[in-house]
Amino acid sequence: MAKIVDISHEIDKFDIRMGAFILASAVPYFPKGTVHTAVVDPGVGTDRRPIVVETDRSCFVGPDNGLLILGASKESVRHVYVIENTRFMLPRVSKTFHGRDIFAPAAAHLARGVAAASFGKEIEDYVVPSLAKPCSREDSIRGEVLHIDDFGNVITNIPSKILRELDVREKDSIKVKVGKKIAVLKFCSAYCDVPWGDAVAMIGSHDFLEISVNQGNAAKLFTTKRGDSIRLRI
Amino acid sequence: MAKIVDISHEIDKFDIRMGAFILASAVPYFPKGTVHTAVVDPGVGTDRRPIVVETDRSCFVGPDNGLLILGASKESVRHVYVIENTRFMLPRVSKTFHGRDIFAPAAAHLARGVAAASFGKEIEDYVVPSLAKPCSREDSIRGEVLHIDDFGNVITNIPSKILRELDVREKDSIKVKVGKKIAVLKFCSAYCDVPWGDAVAMIGSHDFLEISVNQGNAAKLFTTKRGDSIRLRI
Amino acid sequence: MAKIVDISHEIDKFDIRMGAFILASAVPYFPKGTVHTAVVDPGVGTDRRPIVVETDRSCFVGPDNGLLILGASKESVRHVYVIENTRFMLPRVSKTFHGRDIFAPAAAHLARGVAAASFGKEIEDYVVPSLAKPCSREDSIRGEVLHIDDFGNVITNIPSKILRELDVREKDSIKVKVGKKIAVLKFCSAYCDVPWGDAVAMIGSHDFLEISVNQGNAAKLFTTKRGDSIRLRI
Repeated sequence: MAKIVDISHEIDKFDIRMGAFILASAVPYFPKGTVHTAVVDPGVGTDRRPIVVETDRSCFVGPDNGLLILGASKESVRHVYVIENTRFMLPRVSKTFHGRDIFAPAAAHLARGVAAASFGKEIEDYVVPSLAKPCSREDSIRGEVLHIDDFGNVITNIPSKILRELDVREKDSIKVKVGKKIAVLKFCSAYCDVPWGDAVAMIGSHDFLEISVNQGNAAKLFTTKRGDSIRLRI
Repeated sequence: MAKIVDISHEIDKFDIRMGAFILASAVPYFPKGTVHTAVVDPGVGTDRRPIVVETDRSCFVGPDNGLLILGASKESVRHVYVIENTRFMLPRVSKTFHGRDIFAPAAAHLARGVAAASFGKEIEDYVVPSLAKPCSREDSIRGEVLHIDDFGNVITNIPSKILRELDVREKDSIKVKVGKKIAVLKFCSAYCDVPWGDAVAMIGSHDFLEISVNQGNAAKLFTTKRGDSIRLRI
Repeated sequence: MAKIVDISHEIDKFDIRMGAFILASAVPYFPKGTVHTAVVDPGVGTDRRPIVVETDRSCFVGPDNGLLILGASKESVRHVYVIENTRFMLPRVSKTFHGRDIFAPAAAHLARGVAAASFGKEIEDYVVPSLAKPCSREDSIRGEVLHIDDFGNVITNIPSKILRELDVREKDSIKVKVGKKIAVLKFCSAYCDVPWGDAVAMIGSHDFLEISVNQGNAAKLFTTKRGDSIRLRI
């Protein structure tokens, strides 16, 4: 019998970015062979495609609007298929509730062993949102603000592996431009590695680069909000 | 081991109508043999009876206040029993929390194979709320507004089968009176079958008749609210 | 496979008292051998210790801030161990999310049969918050207001067993001082055992002494709030 784990029913309406972040945060803690389903689906009823993303470790089922890709790229994306085969949908597919009529049944069939390739044709032009495309070149990285938590910590979409690839080490200085503000921060392993009130760059508990202020509010300090671009120079 | 599926913990306090609607929406997606338990129970501690409703497909456990009947009548109601047998309750039954002390234990016993008839005497005079009594005669249907969703769609308590019985077909015109407003609507299969801003009657994703406005708010257009009566003339 | 039951994700931030109350309310309904995990953890990242509490019936995993002890003392506390053994933690332990990195893995290992003593050294000086220390002497009891429910019922931290030990019986009079107000209440088994508008002392559905007003609001009557001290004289 399938073991179902509910991650969250508290994603804000239409907020693909928030859904992508929460999904990506949970992905690394699930075992190989997991089928992830997520639905934040403002485009339901339009020609937005339903997809299955197959990685080296798991499958992701949901709308082709960028929701799944941030989580899937924590693993290695192998194939993306459109869900076209009505055999794997409910008998009556509404135009308003694909989570129930298409995604959940597809996830159930995948969990029972149906191959991802059985759902429909493979596609290459699936949506990769900017939030899933941090990029690095020589000594600089571009990304964006993925999430601001209740404490005002600024969580970026830059995964720890990009910093490792650029050989960034503890106590290195990083020049950070968030929105219009620029600062030089120390790369540390904990808030408390800098004096009270100072900003710090660190890998947060979600494995993304995070800008924090020791006992303060980094989002206020940088007057930044979700979606803002961020640049680093090492 | 029982497989427990939580449908919702977000029903508004005391809102039997909302609970009935959410339960009825979920019922068709559960397999034969399911035991449904629901609790919206403003009458706990009074002489409101605890009941088991047995249908041809499943059992429903909860208060006899109308909460269960809309969902149960999506199937075919066979028997309704009062829960009297203390053997199937917790040793100490509080006057304030029958969900814990009576309903959940009864549901667990049903799931383990105890017959519904073992709980107590059969009754005929269980509560059937108006929301579970849409009625049709020749060319007209009376019902009420069951729910208004976040988009202002007006979901009625008229199930698709009543429209099928009256042989209502796609593109037929339906004269609708909601509250004090009257309109003639086309019966369609999707919002977008009518021009932008026009109202439409359709079977919604919950299998009830729904009044919607293509990219608009039907509840505002008809100045209607939950519980309002609705009449259709085909 | 472990059977996981989510009790609540709706504890107010930082509210150890509320978490302790909800946990203690659920504990008696779980079978012997249950592993309880709870996280309300304002001290995460400080030297607040992670602990396992072993009782005669179950284990409790969480922060050593008083959250677990009210629930654990519904059973008989045998040993408390600090979680030190990194073998039972995630490979990377963040400074901000011990629920994920320490408590959940420890609970999983306990559920798989690892002995509580394997996690680290036994301690005696674990935190026992005032809310877990109601005390009685001859004919008086001291406690505090644990929770005020949506109906204004004042739930104290005084368990029914203290009243049984003092041989308090139905219809006995109890002199109650809540905050600065004093009243003499009858000890009854239901709200409706006193006239409309009268206050009453009873054992509530959570097995704690509760001060209620029949169809009224006891918290308003006594102008009391959570954490206020309460004294009884029998």
